[in-house]
Amino acid sequence: MIPFNVAKLLELKVQLGGDEGRHQFTLKTAKGTRDYNPKQMAIREKVFNTIISCFKRHGAENIDTPVFELKETLTGKYGEDSKLIYDLKDQGGELLSLRYDLTVPFARYLAMNKVTNIKRYHIAKVYRRDNPAMTRGRYREFYQCDFDIAGQYDPMIPDAECLKIVHEILSELELGDFRIKVNDRRILDGMFAVCGVPDDKFRTICSTVDKLDKMSWEDVRSEMVKEKGLSEEAADQIGQYVRGMDLAERLLQDAKMSQSKQACAGLTDMKQLFSYLQLFQVTDKVVFDLSLARGLDYYTGVIYEAILTQTGPVPVAAAQNGAGEKAEEGVSVGSVAGGGRYDGLVGMFDPKGRKVPCVGVSIGIERVFSIMEQKAEASAEKVRTTETQVMVASAQKNLLEERLRLTAELWNAGIKAEVMYKKNPKLLSQLQHCEDSGIPLVAILGEQELKDGVVKLRTVHSREEIDVSRAKLVEEIKRRTSDV
Amino acid sequence: MIPFNVAKLLELKVQLGGDEGRHQFTLKTAKGTRDYNPKQMAIREKVFNTIISCFKRHGAENIDTPVFELKETLTGKYGEDSKLIYDLKDQGGELLSLRYDLTVPFARYLAMNKVTNIKRYHIAKVYRRDNPAMTRGRYREFYQCDFDIAGQYDPMIPDAECLKIVHEILSELELGDFRIKVNDRRILDGMFAVCGVPDDKFRTICSTVDKLDKMSWEDVRSEMVKEKGLSEEAADQIGQYVRGMDLAERLLQDAKMSQSKQACAGLTDMKQLFSYLQLFQVTDKVVFDLSLARGLDYYTGVIYEAILTQTGPVPVAAAQNGAGEKAEEGVSVGSVAGGGRYDGLVGMFDPKGRKVPCVGVSIGIERVFSIMEQKAEASAEKVRTTETQVMVASAQKNLLEERLRLTAELWNAGIKAEVMYKKNPKLLSQLQHCEDSGIPLVAILGEQELKDGVVKLRTVHSREEIDVSRAKLVEEIKRRTSDV
Repeated sequence: MIPFNVAKLLELKVQLGGDEGRHQFTLKTAKGTRDYNPKQMAIREKVFNTIISCFKRHGAENIDTPVFELKETLTGKYGEDSKLIYDLKDQGGELLSLRYDLTVPFARYLAMNKVTNIKRYHIAKVYRRDNPAMTRGRYREFYQCDFDIAGQYDPMIPDAECLKIVHEILSELELGDFRIKVNDRRILDGMFAVCGVPDDKFRTICSTVDKLDKMSWEDVRSEMVKEKGLSEEAADQIGQYVRGMDLAERLLQDAKMSQSKQACAGLTDMKQLFSYLQLFQVTDKVVFDLSLARGLDYYTGVIYEAILTQTGPVPVAAAQNGAGEKAEEGVSVGSVAGGGRYDGLVGMFDPKGRKVPCVGVSIGIERVFSIMEQKAEASAEKVRTTETQVMVASAQKNLLEERLRLTAELWNAGIKAEVMYKKNPKLLSQLQHCEDSGIPLVAILGEQELKDGVVKLRTVHSREEIDVSRAKLVEEIKRRTSDV
Repeated sequence: MIPFNVAKLLELKVQLGGDEGRHQFTLKTAKGTRDYNPKQMAIREKVFNTIISCFKRHGAENIDTPVFELKETLTGKYGEDSKLIYDLKDQGGELLSLRYDLTVPFARYLAMNKVTNIKRYHIAKVYRRDNPAMTRGRYREFYQCDFDIAGQYDPMIPDAECLKIVHEILSELELGDFRIKVNDRRILDGMFAVCGVPDDKFRTICSTVDKLDKMSWEDVRSEMVKEKGLSEEAADQIGQYVRGMDLAERLLQDAKMSQSKQACAGLTDMKQLFSYLQLFQVTDKVVFDLSLARGLDYYTGVIYEAILTQTGPVPVAAAQNGAGEKAEEGVSVGSVAGGGRYDGLVGMFDPKGRKVPCVGVSIGIERVFSIMEQKAEASAEKVRTTETQVMVASAQKNLLEERLRLTAELWNAGIKAEVMYKKNPKLLSQLQHCEDSGIPLVAILGEQELKDGVVKLRTVHSREEIDVSRAKLVEEIKRRTSDV
């Protein structure tokens, strides 16, 4: 009945008219997406600059891949998360999907171009059609900042550099204290084997273990046993390993674990990794954590995840948004970076199965944004959304042409300048605009100044004014704004 | 029959096996898209930096909108080009489409957030499902660099700034000589009216006139008459106006044109615009061209397009790619920027139809890339794809740990440094890497240097080597690379 009544009402509304035929637009962005306003963009630019500087400091090149891929390129890489892939409409051509992360397109790029070694970064948006029921506000479009090293090298050196990069970036962004949890898929797999998990259940049990930081052990155990059909004994044995603290040392001597070739290889690499991390002086923040599993199918060795350990209030947006998802699958509060080794992924694309070992890290940039936005909100300092150094203004009427001429002079000299698009704006509104947008200087023109060949240069915050000769204006503005 | 046989053959193939169960991936990017390699990205970054610097010099803020919009947001804005919009698969939610340009999302943003004035830039990818038959290699994914001024201001001041920006950017990019063609939709419409074009045919005749720079007048005339049903007399009268040169002066006195209120308003604004352009000293490159029409429906006033006038060989890629499409609808060779005034677009989104006048410009960045790439190819200078300042190397074995330690020291001091991920790389291969990637300095460690507390600093191009004390290394590297 209700749909029928709605239809009837809508029909009546059309008959009544009154909206002058205007089409009723739904004025919104697509579900799970949002616009970024200038203030958010200013904060984002600052964060990007810090991250890109770090990537460049480590000699990374930059690549870009398309926003959509052939659907089959993405198929079978993400395990349980594959259902979140966005498909495009079949328009008589190819079956296409929006990229789910930047890692699989990177592997496709390497295989397609037969690149066997590269150190690259890629910053771009990825897309996940998150199930609304499980989302609590996670975004469907968000940025990833990825750094990856591909190539056959001596063990653990590139892996150590990835962790060093996480350490540098998180330190520079000043987000508060952090920890980097490290584990190895081979240790996990070895542990699963000695605990009696059947081979074909490794990946799915892995994704359950990965939920330990947001679910209780009881719930994790129950998922393993009831949903995934693991024996109670195996689940309990896994529990003993992953729930203990200070596992690193114990594992290295564990009689059972040492039976697994895989686990031993992982543990040997772990020791080597920590020795390099020591040289890089980042061991203060790195902990070996056997409960870290990471959900994606493609990891083959070392895996890691950085979490913020500050105890202050966690920003809601940060806890919600599904940012930098190589960095964090799940809503674990405070995860801001993550990654690992994926030696098999490129081979999946190569017609002859040729492997290119890879290791990488992704910064959870959306979460970082949220924290930075909250900090900006809390601080007294205003976020500037332009870089304008000087406003060209006048107090008198009929000076538009003179204002435009001077503004062009400044632009041509590389000065960031603004002028109001009004013939006769009030001086007060020109000054107000400077206050509002943080423009530090005003160049004021008047009849007298024009006659004298000078400009009155006003410092907005102190209200001081001095006359500067037109010939020296550029130099004077540069001098005063050089520290900005 | 054929599908049946294909199915049978595929079945046979499966039975024969032999591909070891490997799934046969199609190793390619989606049709009409491409990857960008590090060299292309380095050139792109340089171009972006020039353009963004200019936008910031003019006080622009930055915004970002999602890559897809509700389908209805894009409906009815692009005229004949609407068929090129990419739709997403209906996944039980909203009907979504990939953005076709950055202008319509900007207008949606303004209406949705009730923004009545802003000067913003937006650099992002847009999507056009170009019909392969008509494409000749045009890309379906490409970047746009847009700068727009929204707000109610005195006439032609923001319009003049947009043209000034085009002038600055094209001059700075050193792409060769250029012209900026200017026209006004109201003059066109007025001309159509006095030539006897029915009101409801203005837009479609407009998009035919816009083809004049890639089609002969005979073909344009034929399209007007045969396809669009215009009378032969009207078509011939339009021809008299748009095919003449030096029209500006004639038009201002034309008895017929002066009958059109619209045309007069356009011509008055045109005079005003040129007076501001004179103040900005950019009239050397700007010409009034009545044959410029621009295809998109949303323009309401001044329109413009910048073309390169160099007579050298036109790069194939540049002529092909569908770059910066607000800049150029069509394959007119050499168009690198374009835009215009669209005072009605925001009002189409506002529930109460409130208008926000807008004017903007889009840089045809993909075309600019192609030209820059060709220039880089032709020049002897190598394009660097990293910014690495120094390679930490050693000639002797077993110094990996020392190399890593020194590299971390340099990173921590903000130096861009690389180290090879091998325990014992050959000195030659370390030096070769510097040659290949343009790294200017090598910091060489040996037993003796470690004992003496020095590092051998080698300049790659001159092969000079000097010993620098470890304490002064950072300072020395900074000094030597400060001009880079």
